[in-house]
Amino acid sequence: MKRLFFFALICIYCRLLCAEDGSRLWLRSEPAGTAEVSVSADSPTLNLARRELQAYWKGSPVKLERTGNRNIRELTPEGFEIRTEDNHLVIRSSGDQGILYGAFHLLRLQETGADLSALDIREKPSYQYRVLNHWDNLDRTVERGYAGRSLWLWNELPGTLSPRYEMYARANASLGINGTVLNNVNASPLILSAEYLEKVKALAGLFRPYGIKVYLAINFSSPAELGGLDTSDPLDPAVRKWWKDKAKEIYTLIPDFGGFLVKANSEGLPGPQDFGRSHVDGANMIADALKPFKGIVMWRAFVYEPEDDDRAKQTYQEFVPFDGQFRDNVIIQVKNGPVDFQPREPFSPLLGAMKKTPTMVEFQITQEYTGFSNHLNYLAPIWKECLESDTWQQGEGSTVARVTDGSVYPQKLTAIAGVANIGDDINWCGHHFAQSNWYAFGRLAWNHRLTSEEIAGEWLKQTFSLTGVEQRNSVNVYNEIKEMMLTANETIVDYMMPLGLHHLFAFGHHYGPEPWCAIPGARPDWMPSYYHKADKEGVGFNRSTSGSNAVSQYHASLKEIFNDPLRCPDELLLWFHHAPWDHTMQSGRTLWDEMCHRYSRGAAQVKDYQKVWENALDFIDSQRFEEVRHRLKIQARDAEWWRDGCLLYFQEFSGMEFPQGMDAPVHELKNMRKYKLDITNFENPTYEMLFKK
Amino acid sequence: MKRLFFFALICIYCRLLCAEDGSRLWLRSEPAGTAEVSVSADSPTLNLARRELQAYWKGSPVKLERTGNRNIRELTPEGFEIRTEDNHLVIRSSGDQGILYGAFHLLRLQETGADLSALDIREKPSYQYRVLNHWDNLDRTVERGYAGRSLWLWNELPGTLSPRYEMYARANASLGINGTVLNNVNASPLILSAEYLEKVKALAGLFRPYGIKVYLAINFSSPAELGGLDTSDPLDPAVRKWWKDKAKEIYTLIPDFGGFLVKANSEGLPGPQDFGRSHVDGANMIADALKPFKGIVMWRAFVYEPEDDDRAKQTYQEFVPFDGQFRDNVIIQVKNGPVDFQPREPFSPLLGAMKKTPTMVEFQITQEYTGFSNHLNYLAPIWKECLESDTWQQGEGSTVARVTDGSVYPQKLTAIAGVANIGDDINWCGHHFAQSNWYAFGRLAWNHRLTSEEIAGEWLKQTFSLTGVEQRNSVNVYNEIKEMMLTANETIVDYMMPLGLHHLFAFGHHYGPEPWCAIPGARPDWMPSYYHKADKEGVGFNRSTSGSNAVSQYHASLKEIFNDPLRCPDELLLWFHHAPWDHTMQSGRTLWDEMCHRYSRGAAQVKDYQKVWENALDFIDSQRFEEVRHRLKIQARDAEWWRDGCLLYFQEFSGMEFPQGMDAPVHELKNMRKYKLDITNFENPTYEMLFKK
Repeated sequence: MKRLFFFALICIYCRLLCAEDGSRLWLRSEPAGTAEVSVSADSPTLNLARRELQAYWKGSPVKLERTGNRNIRELTPEGFEIRTEDNHLVIRSSGDQGILYGAFHLLRLQETGADLSALDIREKPSYQYRVLNHWDNLDRTVERGYAGRSLWLWNELPGTLSPRYEMYARANASLGINGTVLNNVNASPLILSAEYLEKVKALAGLFRPYGIKVYLAINFSSPAELGGLDTSDPLDPAVRKWWKDKAKEIYTLIPDFGGFLVKANSEGLPGPQDFGRSHVDGANMIADALKPFKGIVMWRAFVYEPEDDDRAKQTYQEFVPFDGQFRDNVIIQVKNGPVDFQPREPFSPLLGAMKKTPTMVEFQITQEYTGFSNHLNYLAPIWKECLESDTWQQGEGSTVARVTDGSVYPQKLTAIAGVANIGDDINWCGHHFAQSNWYAFGRLAWNHRLTSEEIAGEWLKQTFSLTGVEQRNSVNVYNEIKEMMLTANETIVDYMMPLGLHHLFAFGHHYGPEPWCAIPGARPDWMPSYYHKADKEGVGFNRSTSGSNAVSQYHASLKEIFNDPLRCPDELLLWFHHAPWDHTMQSGRTLWDEMCHRYSRGAAQVKDYQKVWENALDFIDSQRFEEVRHRLKIQARDAEWWRDGCLLYFQEFSGMEFPQGMDAPVHELKNMRKYKLDITNFENPTYEMLFKK
Repeated sequence: MKRLFFFALICIYCRLLCAEDGSRLWLRSEPAGTAEVSVSADSPTLNLARRELQAYWKGSPVKLERTGNRNIRELTPEGFEIRTEDNHLVIRSSGDQGILYGAFHLLRLQETGADLSALDIREKPSYQYRVLNHWDNLDRTVERGYAGRSLWLWNELPGTLSPRYEMYARANASLGINGTVLNNVNASPLILSAEYLEKVKALAGLFRPYGIKVYLAINFSSPAELGGLDTSDPLDPAVRKWWKDKAKEIYTLIPDFGGFLVKANSEGLPGPQDFGRSHVDGANMIADALKPFKGIVMWRAFVYEPEDDDRAKQTYQEFVPFDGQFRDNVIIQVKNGPVDFQPREPFSPLLGAMKKTPTMVEFQITQEYTGFSNHLNYLAPIWKECLESDTWQQGEGSTVARVTDGSVYPQKLTAIAGVANIGDDINWCGHHFAQSNWYAFGRLAWNHRLTSEEIAGEWLKQTFSLTGVEQRNSVNVYNEIKEMMLTANETIVDYMMPLGLHHLFAFGHHYGPEPWCAIPGARPDWMPSYYHKADKEGVGFNRSTSGSNAVSQYHASLKEIFNDPLRCPDELLLWFHHAPWDHTMQSGRTLWDEMCHRYSRGAAQVKDYQKVWENALDFIDSQRFEEVRHRLKIQARDAEWWRDGCLLYFQEFSGMEFPQGMDAPVHELKNMRKYKLDITNFENPTYEMLFKK
């Protein structure tokens, strides 16, 4: 009996000490329950704020104060002030939501070891709408999702509410994310059925106190496919009525419903062009239906057709002519780059070019193009690169951040979206470090001036409790891991597609290299050779004035630089130019040597990451340590696969030798050409699958 | 028409320039046909010598002179003198064979760029019998052969003689190899049938002018199994008669037949012990049958039983008591190490301990335990390590070379054997560099005082024509490749089983690591744990006086060293000791850290070999360059597999962390435990198979 007791004690102790499955995300503070919290009013949201602080705050008493003071009102109802006053703290906001955000902010300061002695903080969000896009299908697969199946247990809803829904809401609220599109942009009409709307209502009710509005992605053919109409023509009165009725039905159930996200006439999905109408016709018709209820339409600009011009140009060509014609509750959702979430792209030229229409950036949090949840990536640096890109559209300083946050154009709506990387994996995101991208998206949506390093530091300290002195053999583990995060995307760019190369991915699922992919009869713009255009003379897509002229979609100040192969940044050279193999790069190397150098550097860097992680052994709980270690192994091997696949393939064109001293390939091109991963676009390849590649 | 002509010309040119499939081995001199050669007599062997020189010699006139002069006679009929006399050269020998060897020697000097101005060379062989052992089965599989199927086209013999037979004979003669055992030591009785003897006769006739005698491996049960007797008891008069008759039959067909190689009572093969007789009874019975015809018996000492003592001790235990009891035409063939051709072993203690019985060393040229023909290995250094090991049996300087070559003991027979790595692959040995091991065996058999470096240099110069100034980016390619060869075996030891570890191989085929292998009911001495004995305390086989006491089979001077873990060389520590994981090595590192260091060093070294080879791009014909490059890739990946497999496995016992800065594993132990290569023990795994491991 005594033995059993000791055994139980040991089990509990081990569990406390070791069991870290990542399910608690960055919210890992142990409850103390000692805080004194007073609150001036009562509401579900304020109660949440009080509950969080009562459980986790370990400092002086806190007062939560909703106030109509002008200097607080100007922070918006989501903004807040935190001040030390006498021997207590006050969190003030003009809205309950601001107070909840203030509470989470205060707890973050505590968990990251900030100086809490004399706080005087004023925060307001960079964007009004900070939205996750879930590409979740109703069958619980997640398109481009690599963390298991969908969080949403549609078959149990609305009757059963998984405890994960609330954890999800709390995690989002801790960052300031205030909207979620529950379903895939490749939307099923079924989501608007009465049955599903009841399910949506249940989730919306649960998310409401956390300040999270629910949105839905809609299928433009819903009037016909769900409603039984003959058409879905946006100018057809019956169709317009159907949408108005549907909006009313939704808002009756969910009075604060956020609105619709629409992917129309894109990759085979229906849209207004099917009826000879324009994107404006389509978007405005939906907008009109939502307008009475203050709902908004996020209309995606991601459109391209194989028979048209250079794919990179089509979004701009399609949308710029409509500038100023959209309703005031429409915002155009633009992917950060002109093609498709590549490891690196220049910013989309539509951003800043739409001067009378609000635009919002869509980032991809899920790693469709950067190794799924097998590769360690921290995306803040590449998002910051986009946000800080200067469009020059209203003179120097017209950065993407400022042309979308209302600083440059007086737009009524400001927003930012991120395609979620969340699934039902116990650790939410598949890779423990992929949580940092959910975190970083939320933090940047709230404040796009935060640096990648600040965000990485915050996340690391909260997630891995790396707060004390983290030394092992005189290595500062915290700094090393942070550095690994900060360089991760550049490393992936290096070993996947450096120098402006893009879309060399395996067909369909996009895992692993397939620059040689050639499927008879397939859409040419879905083949890598459409993008890399390698031949004996050189490599890269000529988008200069002598080529597709995509450069001319950029402001003259930029066009001039991008158009000149000698001035175009090396990082984008092959995006804009078909450069000869012996082109002299800014490093002084030839293009071929530079390409070899970058691919090799990338592959070598992953091995260094493995070493960084090994050094962290004593500081990370064993479960998460092992799981990250495991995925780093996959990444190290994949990086060599990428390096070898691309270099050996391009070498067939360059005919040039590998530079002396370069790590030699370990794969044969002819074998790599045969690798076929038996995965869909919503699966993360397992180790065993990769082994058989 | 003109076009066709040019096309043909270009084809021929390309063929001359590029087509190098390795089929010409180290005999790649282009015929000049300008040499003046005179010869004092006429014989098939002398004609061969004349023909070789006439075709390939490019220097002053050569006289071939058979002479009975005492100072030539003392070189033996296989030895020779080469002298510059006036304005011509003379090759002198007391035998035709010596003159042929002299001719090949002179050509080698020419091809390796030696100074030919004033030659005064006297050579005689280190061993009388210099024999290849083919482990070729009659179905043309080759046990532990990785270069295709058997050279011997039994079904075509004796009617058809493949041109490769003569090339084989010429290659052997160029090195001084003078005997070949055509068939596997795991012998089929059928080889002694009248039908097969006719085939053997055809080969013997073809090899005769090249000075190569044919031997056969025999099955001890042949009298019963082939002859239909009731028994194969060596003391049975009918059995003795059967062997005498069989010998007579053979010698009638092949008057210069060499003799028999016998594997008896070993790994399930029949032998005298099956009838309650001893190895002496068996060997002497066979010897008596061969004696009238001057045939010899090479009786293998490779015997061990699972139920007996430490396997490493059994050869010594079994044979030492019989010292002095064998007939004078018996020689005991002893594997270089006490276990089985491991990447590194101490020398077999039987060598030198048999004082009244001739012993010969058996090396394994084929790379059963060093990566098959996929891994680049040059075996001369490890063979030299054995040959130069001091047995101390007759005082300091009683090296293995000297206790087997007749210098230490006045033995009548001296011999050396190598298990061939030859198959019907176009390049003979699978890996182009594996040819160097055939070459090195032959050269060391002729002269065991040659250094590994001398032999590597000779082979490289002849095989890859790397004679001029081989500079690429100021790298001396010849020196780099030679260095790669010289370090290759040590590199393999590093990444497979450093520090005296042994037999960690995958079960059966022996390709890849499987230190965890545990097959229920299998012979314990075929399981890796029998050899590594890893546990929480340490690793290694305690063969010291406190353990199996195998150390005591060595001379006291050595025993003392091997027995003391502080004096035992690091390279053999775990052969002789079960050392604690924190044992301090001679490097100052702990055993665990040193093990990690060596495994990592080995794996990294292969990547360096890849770079060495890449540097050789401009100097090696494309076919051989690509083929070696291909196999180096396999090796680089295999080396990581070995490193990870062994280190992750042993880490489960050591419980110690990897040293900081070490390349982290890229494989998961649990996955490696599942790898099963679907190969037999006579196949070289293909790239595709390895990919699926």
